[in-house]
Amino acid sequence: MKPYRDMTPEERHHEYAAVKAHYDELKALNLKLDMSRGKPGRDQLNAVSDILNVLTLEDCTSGSMDVRNYGNLAGILEARSMWADILGCQPSEIFVGGSASLQLMYDLVAKGMDFGLLHSEKPWNKVEGRKWLCPAPGYDRHFRITELFGFELITVKMTPEGPDMDAVEELVKDPKVKGIWCVPKYSNPDGIIYSDEVIRRMANLKPAAPDFAIMWDNAYCIHEFDGDFVPFDDILTLCREAGNPDMIYEFASTSKVTFPGAGISCMACSEANQAYLQKLIGVQIISYDKVNQLRHAKYLQNREHALEIMKRHAAILKPRFASVLNWLEKEIRPAGIGRWETPKGGYFVSLFTDPGLAKRTVALTKEAGVVLTGAGATYPYGKDPDDSNIRIAPSLPPTSELEQAMEVLCTALKLAALEKMGE
Amino acid sequence: MKPYRDMTPEERHHEYAAVKAHYDELKALNLKLDMSRGKPGRDQLNAVSDILNVLTLEDCTSGSMDVRNYGNLAGILEARSMWADILGCQPSEIFVGGSASLQLMYDLVAKGMDFGLLHSEKPWNKVEGRKWLCPAPGYDRHFRITELFGFELITVKMTPEGPDMDAVEELVKDPKVKGIWCVPKYSNPDGIIYSDEVIRRMANLKPAAPDFAIMWDNAYCIHEFDGDFVPFDDILTLCREAGNPDMIYEFASTSKVTFPGAGISCMACSEANQAYLQKLIGVQIISYDKVNQLRHAKYLQNREHALEIMKRHAAILKPRFASVLNWLEKEIRPAGIGRWETPKGGYFVSLFTDPGLAKRTVALTKEAGVVLTGAGATYPYGKDPDDSNIRIAPSLPPTSELEQAMEVLCTALKLAALEKMGE
Repeated sequence: MKPYRDMTPEERHHEYAAVKAHYDELKALNLKLDMSRGKPGRDQLNAVSDILNVLTLEDCTSGSMDVRNYGNLAGILEARSMWADILGCQPSEIFVGGSASLQLMYDLVAKGMDFGLLHSEKPWNKVEGRKWLCPAPGYDRHFRITELFGFELITVKMTPEGPDMDAVEELVKDPKVKGIWCVPKYSNPDGIIYSDEVIRRMANLKPAAPDFAIMWDNAYCIHEFDGDFVPFDDILTLCREAGNPDMIYEFASTSKVTFPGAGISCMACSEANQAYLQKLIGVQIISYDKVNQLRHAKYLQNREHALEIMKRHAAILKPRFASVLNWLEKEIRPAGIGRWETPKGGYFVSLFTDPGLAKRTVALTKEAGVVLTGAGATYPYGKDPDDSNIRIAPSLPPTSELEQAMEVLCTALKLAALEKMGE
Repeated sequence: MKPYRDMTPEERHHEYAAVKAHYDELKALNLKLDMSRGKPGRDQLNAVSDILNVLTLEDCTSGSMDVRNYGNLAGILEARSMWADILGCQPSEIFVGGSASLQLMYDLVAKGMDFGLLHSEKPWNKVEGRKWLCPAPGYDRHFRITELFGFELITVKMTPEGPDMDAVEELVKDPKVKGIWCVPKYSNPDGIIYSDEVIRRMANLKPAAPDFAIMWDNAYCIHEFDGDFVPFDDILTLCREAGNPDMIYEFASTSKVTFPGAGISCMACSEANQAYLQKLIGVQIISYDKVNQLRHAKYLQNREHALEIMKRHAAILKPRFASVLNWLEKEIRPAGIGRWETPKGGYFVSLFTDPGLAKRTVALTKEAGVVLTGAGATYPYGKDPDDSNIRIAPSLPPTSELEQAMEVLCTALKLAALEKMGE
C-alpha cells in the first residue's frame, strides 16, 4: 500500500470504498469492548490473588508493632522500608498512604491550597492567577485535580525524552507557577522514560516560587513488561544535591502490582516536608490501613522480590502490547497517517494520528462498539490542540477481543483520514 | 468518710497526710500505664481476628462486581447495604470510605472550604469570621479539624440529654455558623445518648446558613457493652421529614468493631448530597479499598450479625467500665469532689471534678506513671473553662493494670482537691 497522501484521488476513492465496507462489516458484529482505562485484566488479577491469604494473625502482632490497633501515622516500618527499597530513597522519607496514590496527590495539592506547603508565603487559594505545568499528552486525572483547584493549566510539550525542559525552565520564572505533573517512567500515555538529561534539569530547576512542587508520579516504577528492570535515579537525592531538597514529592502505589484500588500507596519527600505535612495529615487520619500495609510488605518484601512478581504481569502484558503494535505497523504505518512510541513498560500506547483525526477516529471506533479514552483527554481541559492523540489501553480486554478492537481502531483511523482528504 | 468540704481543717490535714503517703507509695511503683485514648485492648483485637482470613478468591469475583479491580466510587453494594442496615437508612444514601471515618469528616469540611457544600453561596474559605458549634466536652479530633480550617469554635454546653438545644437554636441564627459536631450515641466522652427531644430539635433546626452541616458522628452506633442494643432513629429520615434533607452528614466506621484504623467507614447523606459530593470525590480517588469492603461485608453481614460480634467486645469492656465506676464510687463519691455519668456503651467515662482540679489531677496522675487524655482536651482549643473534665479511657490497659491506674487517678484527684482546699 502507498501512503494515503501519495495516492491519486482515484486510488483514494477505491481505498475509501474498501475501508468503509470493512468498517461496516466490523460494525455489524455489535462488539462491546473497552480499551479506555489502564485497568489490569482478570488474568493479571488472578496471577497475584495469592496475596489475599498471605497474612496471618502471628504476622500482625510480631512485627514492628501490632498493626491491628491505632497509631503510627506515617505507616509501619516494614512498608516504609519496602517503598524506600523500591524507589531508592530512605524509609524516613516515605509516608505510606491508603489504597490510592491519587488521593495522596490530591491531598498534597489541597494542603497547598488550604494551608500552603512548607515554603509557601501564603496558601495557594490566596494566589490569584495560580498556574500549573502539564506536560501533555499526560494523565487526565492529574490535570483534573489542578483544574478543580482553579489553577490555569499550562501545556508543556512532551518529547521522546520527557517534557520540553527549555519551556519548563522558562515557565518557572513566573512565581505564580506552583508545580508540574510528571510521570517519569513509562509516562502516561507515551510510555517513554525521561532521559537522564531531562531528570537532571528537572532536579536543578530554579523556580521563582519558593513553594514550587514537582509531582513525580512514579506510577510505573517497576512495571517493565518487555526486558529487565530499568534502573532509575532517586529523584529525592538529585533534588537534594541540586539544593532543592523540598521541591520534590514522589508518589507510587501497588495498584498495578497487586490489586487496583486495594493496595497501598506512598509519598516520598524530604524529612522536612514529612515533618511539615505529617503535622497536617495527623488532623485528618490516625494512620492509613496498617493491616494492608503489612499484607503488602510480606507479599512484596522488597524491590527484588516485587520485580519477581511483576514478571507475572509482564508475561500477560507483553503479547498484548505486541498485538497493538503489530496492528499499527501493519495497518497504519503503510498508510502514513500516524506515529507512536514502542513502550517497554507501563500501560499505554500513545498513538498520534495526523492532525485533526483523533476525535473522528474515537467516534467511529465507538460507533463500532469499541470504547477508547476520549480524544483530548490526555490534554489540559480535555483539548488536544492538534486533535491527534489517542491513548490505547490494551490490558483489560481478553486477547482475542483485543485483536478485534485493534482492527476496529485501525479501520476507523483509516476511514477518518480518507474522509478528511475528501476520500 | 465525710465529704471533704464538710471536714474541719484538722480532719482535712489528716486526710491530706494519708492521701499524700498513699500517692507516694503508688508513685514508687514506677507504673507505665496508658488510659489516654479509646484504643481497644489486645484481647478485643484477638476476639475479632478471625476476619483476617474470612475472604476467599471466590468471594472477590462472585459478588456484585470483581472487587479486585478499579471502579465503583461509592463502594460495593454489599458494603453500602450493610451500612444502611446498621444505620437505618437507604443504600443509595451511603458512601463507603477507607479505614477512617475521621478522614471522611475532614474531607467534607475541606470540600466545604475549597468548593462549598451543596447549598453554599460561596466556599467557606471566603467566609470571614466563619464559626462552628462544638458541644463540649466533646471529641478533640473533631474540634481540631474545624480549628485547623480557621473556624471560630463556639462551645455549647453538653447536658445529660445532649447539647443544650436552646443555645444551639439561638446560635444558628448567625449565618456565619456553618455546622456542629455531634456524637449522638454514647457521646465522646460523656457516654450519654441524645434524648429523642434533642434529636428532634436538631433535625428541625432552622439555621440562617443554607449550607449549615450537622456532622453526626455515630461512632458508637452498635457499641453497647451493658445491655441490649438501643434502637436509634435514622437521623436522615428525621431531617428529611423536617424539610432539612441536605443538612445532615452521618459517619460511622468499623474501627471499634473489627480493627481500629484498618476497617471501613461510611458517610450517610441525602442522595442530592451524594450526587454533589461524589462528583468532587471522584477527582481524588477512583474508589476506596473494595477488597476490604467485601471482607467486612462478609464478616459483619448486617446489623443483627454485627451486634452478635459486638457481644465479644461487650464481654471484655463491661468489667473494665465496672472497675472504673467502682473506683469512682468508692473513692470519689464519699469525698464529694466529682460527678460522672454511668455509660452503657462507647469507650469513655467522663469525670467532672470540682472546678479547678482537672489539670492538677492529670499532672499528678502522670507523675505517678499513668497517662490520661490531657485535661482540657475535650474542649475547643484544649481549654476547659472550669478545669473540671477528665476523660477516662479504660479499654486499653490489661484489667490488673486498670485497677492500679484507677487507684492512681482517684488518689491524685483527692490530693489535688485537698491541696486546693489548703490541705
